[in-house]
Amino acid sequence: MDAEIISIGDELLIGQVVNTNAAWMGEKLSLNGIRTSFVSTVGDNRDHILKSISNAAERARIILLTGGLGPTKDDITKSVLCEYFKTDLRYDEEVLANVTRLFKLRGRSLTELNRRQAEVPANCQVINNEMGTAPGMWFEFNGCILISMPGVPYEMKAMMQNSILPELSKRFGEGVIIHKTLHTVGIPESFLAAKLEEFEEDLPENISLAYLPEPGMVRLRLSAFGHNRKALTELMEEKLKTLVNLAAKYIFSESGESLEEAVGKLLLVSNSTLSVAESCSGGYLGSLITGIPGSSAYFMGGIISYSNQVKMQWLGVNGENLEQYGAVSEAVVVEMAANAREKFGTTYALSISGIAGPGGGSNEKPVGTVWIGISGPKGTKAEKFSFGEDRKLNVRLAAVTALNLLRHEIMPYVTKS
Amino acid sequence: MDAEIISIGDELLIGQVVNTNAAWMGEKLSLNGIRTSFVSTVGDNRDHILKSISNAAERARIILLTGGLGPTKDDITKSVLCEYFKTDLRYDEEVLANVTRLFKLRGRSLTELNRRQAEVPANCQVINNEMGTAPGMWFEFNGCILISMPGVPYEMKAMMQNSILPELSKRFGEGVIIHKTLHTVGIPESFLAAKLEEFEEDLPENISLAYLPEPGMVRLRLSAFGHNRKALTELMEEKLKTLVNLAAKYIFSESGESLEEAVGKLLLVSNSTLSVAESCSGGYLGSLITGIPGSSAYFMGGIISYSNQVKMQWLGVNGENLEQYGAVSEAVVVEMAANAREKFGTTYALSISGIAGPGGGSNEKPVGTVWIGISGPKGTKAEKFSFGEDRKLNVRLAAVTALNLLRHEIMPYVTKS
Repeated sequence: MDAEIISIGDELLIGQVVNTNAAWMGEKLSLNGIRTSFVSTVGDNRDHILKSISNAAERARIILLTGGLGPTKDDITKSVLCEYFKTDLRYDEEVLANVTRLFKLRGRSLTELNRRQAEVPANCQVINNEMGTAPGMWFEFNGCILISMPGVPYEMKAMMQNSILPELSKRFGEGVIIHKTLHTVGIPESFLAAKLEEFEEDLPENISLAYLPEPGMVRLRLSAFGHNRKALTELMEEKLKTLVNLAAKYIFSESGESLEEAVGKLLLVSNSTLSVAESCSGGYLGSLITGIPGSSAYFMGGIISYSNQVKMQWLGVNGENLEQYGAVSEAVVVEMAANAREKFGTTYALSISGIAGPGGGSNEKPVGTVWIGISGPKGTKAEKFSFGEDRKLNVRLAAVTALNLLRHEIMPYVTKS
Repeated sequence: MDAEIISIGDELLIGQVVNTNAAWMGEKLSLNGIRTSFVSTVGDNRDHILKSISNAAERARIILLTGGLGPTKDDITKSVLCEYFKTDLRYDEEVLANVTRLFKLRGRSLTELNRRQAEVPANCQVINNEMGTAPGMWFEFNGCILISMPGVPYEMKAMMQNSILPELSKRFGEGVIIHKTLHTVGIPESFLAAKLEEFEEDLPENISLAYLPEPGMVRLRLSAFGHNRKALTELMEEKLKTLVNLAAKYIFSESGESLEEAVGKLLLVSNSTLSVAESCSGGYLGSLITGIPGSSAYFMGGIISYSNQVKMQWLGVNGENLEQYGAVSEAVVVEMAANAREKFGTTYALSISGIAGPGGGSNEKPVGTVWIGISGPKGTKAEKFSFGEDRKLNVRLAAVTALNLLRHEIMPYVTKS
C-alpha cells in the first residue's frame, strides 16, 4: 500500500522552516506497514496544490496533506480542496464547539476569522483536532483516501496518532515491513561495501541494504518487506546475524544509540572513568561525551590545552618535546594522555592534537594531520590520522576517532567480564 | 525564474533523515532571486526518479537533484540520468584525479568501487566536489538545466556555494534583490518584534523584514526588490540605519559572522586573551570559540571541571562553598572564573555551571538553572539564568549567553580606543 505526502507552505520552499513533518509521517507510516513513495512540497498556490493532488491520486491510494489550514488569507488548502472535489463549504457544529472550547481555555473570545475554521468541504469527514483550532479532513474518492491536516507539528502528530494511523493500519496494514539499522564507525562506506558485496548479492528480493554515511561513520539499514510477520522476522534475524558477523569490528550500536552513548555504556559497565586533553578539538570531544545524560558518572573532566603554555603548565608536557617534535606529534599526545590520566585520576584519558586548518599546515604536517593518544591500564599509545581540509570536519573526525579508539580499548575487558 | 528540487533517498521517505538539504537550497536560491516552486522527495527507485524528472522538466527551467550518487548499489541516480538522457557513462580523468587526491590525503588506496565514481553520463559537465568523491553533474537540455549533486550536506553545500549559485545567479538573476542580515543576541523574538513594530509597518511594499529565530539569537533579514540597483541600495541603507539604531544593543554582526567570531574579533582588537572553566557545558563553549580559524591568537585554553573534585583540585574552588551552596551557585562560578583567569593568565575568563537536565533538578534549582561567571580587568561577577528543559538547548544557550556577557564586557574598551 503506497502513500504520498504533500506538504503545503511557502515557508518550506524558502527554507524558513525545515520539513520535519514529512520525515515524521514517513517513519510512522512505514512502521505501520505503509510505504511512502513520494513527498511533494508546494507553496500556498492554487495551481500547484491542485496539480500535486492530481499527480498523487494517479499513483497512490493514500494521500496525506499538511499545511494551509490556518485562519489567515495565505492559507488556501480548504478552498482548493472544494475546487478539486467540486463541492462547497459547510458549517460544522462540532468543529465550532471545539474552537470555542479552545478559546475559552486560553481566555480569549472568538473572532470572525476563527469562526470560519468551522467551515469544511461538504464531502469530508471531520477529524477532531485536540491541540488546535483547524480541523482535520478525511475524503474518500475513486478508491483513494485523502487526508488534510494542519501543518503545526504537534497538532498533526496528535491527529495522526489518535485517529489517522489506527484507521489506516486497520484498513491497509496487511503487508509487513521491518527495518533494522546498524551503526558502524572506523571504516569508509566503499570499504564496507566491498566487505559486504557478496552478502548484498545473496539477499532475497524482499530484503534490501542501504548505506547511510556520516562523517567517520556509516549506518547500515536492512529493510524487509513481506506478508507473514513471523516468517519475515525469522528471515530478517538470520540475515542480520550474518551482517553483524561480517561487520562486527565496526558496529557500535544495533539500537540507534550514538557513539558517545555506546562508549559511555562501556565505561559504565566496566566501572571506568575518563578524562580528556584536547588541543585542536578545543573542547568538542568533552562536549560530545557530556551530551549524554548521566555522563557525570564516568566523565571527570578535561583540559583544553590550546596553547603550548597550557600544555606545559597544566599537563606537564615537556618543553623540549614541544620544541623538538612540535605540538602535533606522538611524543606530545602521549604525554598529554598519560599526564591527564594521572592528574585526573581516571581509568582512561584521551588526547588530541592536530592541525585543524585552514592555516598551520606544512609539507611535513599538512592540514588534517591529527595525533590521537589514549592512556589506560594497558599503557599509553598514540596513532596518527590524516583527515581532510575542512576545519569543522577535522575536529568532528578527530573526536569520533578518539571515541572509537577508546571503544576498542575497553571492549576486551567488557567482553571478558 | 522557477526552480524545482528533487531529493533522492529511501532514508528521506522513511524519516530516518530529515530533508534539511531542500530547506537550505530553497533559502539560497531565494536569496539569489530564484524561486523554488516544488520540492519532490523520492526513493532510490528508477521509475519514481524518472517520473519526477519529467514532471519537473515540464514545469521548471532549473532542476536540482541531490542524493543517490554514492559508490554503492543502492545509489542509482547516475544510471537513471543516463537512461533519461539516452546516453552512456564516460570515464572522467579529472574526477579520478580528485578521488585519488582525496584518498591519498586520507592515506588509503582506491578500490574498484571508488574508481567507478569517476564515471559520469557522457552529456554532462562535471562540477568538482572539493569535499568528497562523488562529482556533481550539470546537464542542459531543451532550455532546461538539470544539476545532480551528492546528498551529503557539506558536499552539496560547498558545490552550491562555489560553483552552482554563482553560475545560476549570473544567468538568471535579472531583477535586483538585496538582502541584508543583522544578527542579534540576548532578546527573544517577540520582544524584538514589539520593538520593531512601527518600523515594520512603515516599510515600503518592496522591502520586507523577516525574523529568523535560533536558540538565544534572532536573525533579522531585510530584503529589498526592485530594478534600479542604485536607488534600491540607497533606500535599503536608509532603512538599515534606522533598524540598526533601534536594535543596536542586541546586534553583534552586520556581515554574517557568528557570535564566537564577533567576540573573537573584539578580543583581538582589544589585545585580550580568554580562558574558560566549564562544568555543565562540558567543553561546548571552548569548541565554539576554537571553531574560529586563528582563535589560538586569543584563546589559551580551559578546564572542563565536570566533577567537584576537578573544580577543587584544578580550579581551587573552595570545598566549603561547594558543600554550602552547591556546584550550581554564584559563589562557585565566581571562583571558577576568577581562578581560571589567574591560573591561565588571561585577560578574561568565562565560567559556566548549571543543571542541563534531564536529571539533577530540584525545586530550588530546576533543570535549566545556569550560573555564568565572568572575570576581567574590572573584576569578577556572575549572573543566573533560567533556560528550558532540553539538555542540548540548555548547553547551547549557556554558551551563547556567556559569549554575549563577554561581548558586553569588552565593548566599552573597544569603543573607547
